[in-house]
Amino acid sequence: MTTNEPPEAPRTVGVILFDRFQLLDVFGPLEMLGALPDHFRLLLIGPEGGPVASSFGPRSDLDRTYADAPDFDVLFIPGGMGTRPLVQDRDFLAWLRERGEAAELVTSVCTGAAVLAAAGLLDGYRATSNKRAFQWVREQGPNTEWVPQARWVHDRNRWTSSGVAAGIDMALALIAHLHGEQAALEVADRAEYEWHRGAGWDPFAAKNGLVEGPA
Amino acid sequence: MTTNEPPEAPRTVGVILFDRFQLLDVFGPLEMLGALPDHFRLLLIGPEGGPVASSFGPRSDLDRTYADAPDFDVLFIPGGMGTRPLVQDRDFLAWLRERGEAAELVTSVCTGAAVLAAAGLLDGYRATSNKRAFQWVREQGPNTEWVPQARWVHDRNRWTSSGVAAGIDMALALIAHLHGEQAALEVADRAEYEWHRGAGWDPFAAKNGLVEGPA
Repeated sequence: MTTNEPPEAPRTVGVILFDRFQLLDVFGPLEMLGALPDHFRLLLIGPEGGPVASSFGPRSDLDRTYADAPDFDVLFIPGGMGTRPLVQDRDFLAWLRERGEAAELVTSVCTGAAVLAAAGLLDGYRATSNKRAFQWVREQGPNTEWVPQARWVHDRNRWTSSGVAAGIDMALALIAHLHGEQAALEVADRAEYEWHRGAGWDPFAAKNGLVEGPA
Repeated sequence: MTTNEPPEAPRTVGVILFDRFQLLDVFGPLEMLGALPDHFRLLLIGPEGGPVASSFGPRSDLDRTYADAPDFDVLFIPGGMGTRPLVQDRDFLAWLRERGEAAELVTSVCTGAAVLAAAGLLDGYRATSNKRAFQWVREQGPNTEWVPQARWVHDRNRWTSSGVAAGIDMALALIAHLHGEQAALEVADRAEYEWHRGAGWDPFAAKNGLVEGPA
């Protein structure tokens, strides 16, 4: 319980957007973190040129560009089809690595982990990612210990989740880690969301043949 | 099963945005519907003046304004703090009523049901809404049969869901209704989302004292 601790300044969450990001990867976790404005300030960061389009079309407006983004405490990167060109983009990866090394926490949802890995930010860490893209993600991070069955993996200051909806469960776990289990439960209840509280809950690994088990 | 039926044209989903809409109310369901571009075309509609800000800050770009929106097949309205002024906005409600009466399906998430009710679109229908705002929502629709315990309610061509995350389950039920259970399960699996398939699953009604039961 942290309820009687003195208030801290909110952490700034740098939400790294790019062309063809996955909608729920971003807005699931932001629904959870955004419910606690005393603890988290959301900053949407993307390429030059205005709103960025998600994989399914809807476009998100940006607060800052990669070039002019201020420092942030939590790096958050989602997945989506747009991760495929990103893992080849040396300038972007150099920028991401620098920002990740400066951040207190580095987090990803879905194939966002492939981009962190390509930037070297998961070297020597345990991590997970989307089940249907697992082999491709694995190839981006030869120095990462990839965990096929996990809703999310928390290793030191790295937090990586499985595909899409898993990001919501990880965001709640991050809230619990920083601000106590009760705060996370309250956020989940307010959103009428059934939180999967165990990081080991992952029926999708077996469904996609990554581990043995009932499909 | 509808797998051997001839393909239909995609339905256009008119997503009604407004200042201070709730992020996950919108982008949870759109993650599900958007995964089936052969079946659903997403059209984000909002007030004049560019991107609209969600309750938690992030802004969404629009495809069309209320005034210039073309016809759509599915009306979809989310909740959020911005529903409070909307239920008083006669011009908006008249527009919404006309569009709802012309649509094949009328759907809402969370307190979006209050706006549908204020527009008269739920008169004589069964419906549900967010548990923590239930009394206020009820007051907007004296001619609606409000169902306190339900993940979503489907009555003829009206579909209303409970708060925030419940919209994801309703969107999957809508997909199942229109395109078969298998299509919905595939979309849920791809998003690594555990679908609550029963409309009666709703632990949040008891948690918020709307029905008797374990809290």
